[in-house]
Amino acid sequence: MDKKNSTILLTATCIQRIIQEVGLDEIMDQLIERTYFAFSEFDDKNTLIPIRSGFNYKEPAEGLIEWMPLRNIKKDEVLVKMVGYHPQNPTRYQLPTIISTIAKYDTNTGHLKALIDGVLPTALRTGAASAVATKVLANSESNVLGLIGCGAQAVTQLHALSRVYTLKEVLYFDTDPSAVESFQDRVDVLGLKNIEFKHLDINEIVAQADIVCTATSIGVGEGPLFDYSNSKTWLHVNAVGSDFEGKIELPKDLLLQSYVVPDLLEQAVIEGECQQLEPDQIGENIISVIKSTNQLQYLKEQLTVFDSTGIPLEDEVAANLFLDYASDLGIGETVFLENTMIEEKNPYSFMMNLKHK
Amino acid sequence: MDKKNSTILLTATCIQRIIQEVGLDEIMDQLIERTYFAFSEFDDKNTLIPIRSGFNYKEPAEGLIEWMPLRNIKKDEVLVKMVGYHPQNPTRYQLPTIISTIAKYDTNTGHLKALIDGVLPTALRTGAASAVATKVLANSESNVLGLIGCGAQAVTQLHALSRVYTLKEVLYFDTDPSAVESFQDRVDVLGLKNIEFKHLDINEIVAQADIVCTATSIGVGEGPLFDYSNSKTWLHVNAVGSDFEGKIELPKDLLLQSYVVPDLLEQAVIEGECQQLEPDQIGENIISVIKSTNQLQYLKEQLTVFDSTGIPLEDEVAANLFLDYASDLGIGETVFLENTMIEEKNPYSFMMNLKHK
Repeated sequence: MDKKNSTILLTATCIQRIIQEVGLDEIMDQLIERTYFAFSEFDDKNTLIPIRSGFNYKEPAEGLIEWMPLRNIKKDEVLVKMVGYHPQNPTRYQLPTIISTIAKYDTNTGHLKALIDGVLPTALRTGAASAVATKVLANSESNVLGLIGCGAQAVTQLHALSRVYTLKEVLYFDTDPSAVESFQDRVDVLGLKNIEFKHLDINEIVAQADIVCTATSIGVGEGPLFDYSNSKTWLHVNAVGSDFEGKIELPKDLLLQSYVVPDLLEQAVIEGECQQLEPDQIGENIISVIKSTNQLQYLKEQLTVFDSTGIPLEDEVAANLFLDYASDLGIGETVFLENTMIEEKNPYSFMMNLKHK
Repeated sequence: MDKKNSTILLTATCIQRIIQEVGLDEIMDQLIERTYFAFSEFDDKNTLIPIRSGFNYKEPAEGLIEWMPLRNIKKDEVLVKMVGYHPQNPTRYQLPTIISTIAKYDTNTGHLKALIDGVLPTALRTGAASAVATKVLANSESNVLGLIGCGAQAVTQLHALSRVYTLKEVLYFDTDPSAVESFQDRVDVLGLKNIEFKHLDINEIVAQADIVCTATSIGVGEGPLFDYSNSKTWLHVNAVGSDFEGKIELPKDLLLQSYVVPDLLEQAVIEGECQQLEPDQIGENIISVIKSTNQLQYLKEQLTVFDSTGIPLEDEVAANLFLDYASDLGIGETVFLENTMIEEKNPYSFMMNLKHK
């Protein structure tokens, strides 16, 4: 390996330029394909994912800052996503709730190879993960998608699912009338054809949909979003919104009747829907399910829930996809951040040509 | 607070420019003063320091990548230093053993406020921490400094100690003849006057010095550096090199006869000299000692050891010092890394003006 001392920065603008060049659908298709591959090839001897950790607080704002580390042994690298979750950001500061960056380090040397904006990649990879889970857990004939919560996540969920299912109806709900009103305009960019959009209440959505995605900002202790009464017997739910201790979206009744697939069990029992369940009420994780797809075809005929809390494996896929495109397209900034030129035994050599002050 | 969405980058070049502008001595004096203040004012209700964590490995190189987090509640910020420690870097890649960056996040929003090169600041703050510890633990009349290990750390240790003691003799040793030979040239930049430099063997250094700094790259399982036989009864040792499980520099005999002051107990028992000790053989940590300086004057007359493993409080001081100077001097690069312009509910709005691909 050569001496490498530069860091690639992919700023928000770089990420957007890549998507503009490549196209939204191609990006999402690649993400879905690579996420599926990453899950199906996952080997915990090659990829180490310690549970994320961080600081939680109520002041100066309700929020958390956490680090999500991953080590890929075969690639000689460590990836750390730093994530801020501050639900008051939009109203207080006109900032997104989730702000993140993804850093990649070389385990040969400890060098920071790349630092990329994580905001849009996180939104995209969350959609891609739902698409992958839905593909293995939902009825193959599914064509009615319900969206509970019409914020940013609903856009990427719809986008991702529209790439793996031929949707005929999209049923949507939000407690915020402005989110409902703007929803169709916001997804117009997806260029979806032959889909009927219907604004319904939650119970109607749950009753009529083949697939439901919940992505709301319901408060801690305020869930679930609805009482479970009836649905299609093969309903598949992607529970995307739970990602905080005490925050839940789904009624326990539905969970108990469903095969519940966490993305990462240890995390889902702390901050996902699995908070509501005992260990024996939780199914295999998404990686195990994908590795056993052939034996688990029967899951497509029953109630299933994908408890999506977000895992760094998805971030690694997204980061590498954007870095690959950045390299192909010549997009990205190069900075010399770290002092890799420091003389081994002579930290002050750069002062040598100056008079002593 | 305004909507802030820019990140200040202080690259290695920025750090060097600041030092060239301000002067090495002024930087070190400020660091020592601010480190002393940070220790003496430390309140664990205001500053949270979870123990650092990371990945350790033997392949592709012996090393570790770890994260050192700190939350300063009063300042509404989180600081995370990412550190790589790869002892083969100098010979394999002509890179420094320790490569690091320091990131600061706003706990109002999760925004990454600043990212700075950590390589030189880490070397400097380690010197400053020894100066602070030595000031409270060593005999006030000390004027003979011993340096065991003449690498980069020896330069910053000597620099820092020369700012708080009027040194008459510097006794130095290294197993590497080239380090010995170049040592005086490398510290010439410090402009030290009236100091006699003597190359001695370790036992002579330990016997003659008032203060000793050990900063070697002795291998795991290969310590200690020497057998303890005799020294001045008031010898103070700054044990800087131990920072890895199984790596030790000092003989247990010396530790058992000394009052041993760890920087952070939980960390020192894992990777510092305190690995060799039982809990009741370890003294108060440096912060407690500084808070009780008046009652602990007797420590200056006895054997003492500062077990320096490096704590993020020191990094916070160093990062803030450089950021303050950067602001004063107009040094630093501004990048818009995070997608803070993303529309709250409309992640794809930037695609609106493009045709759907």
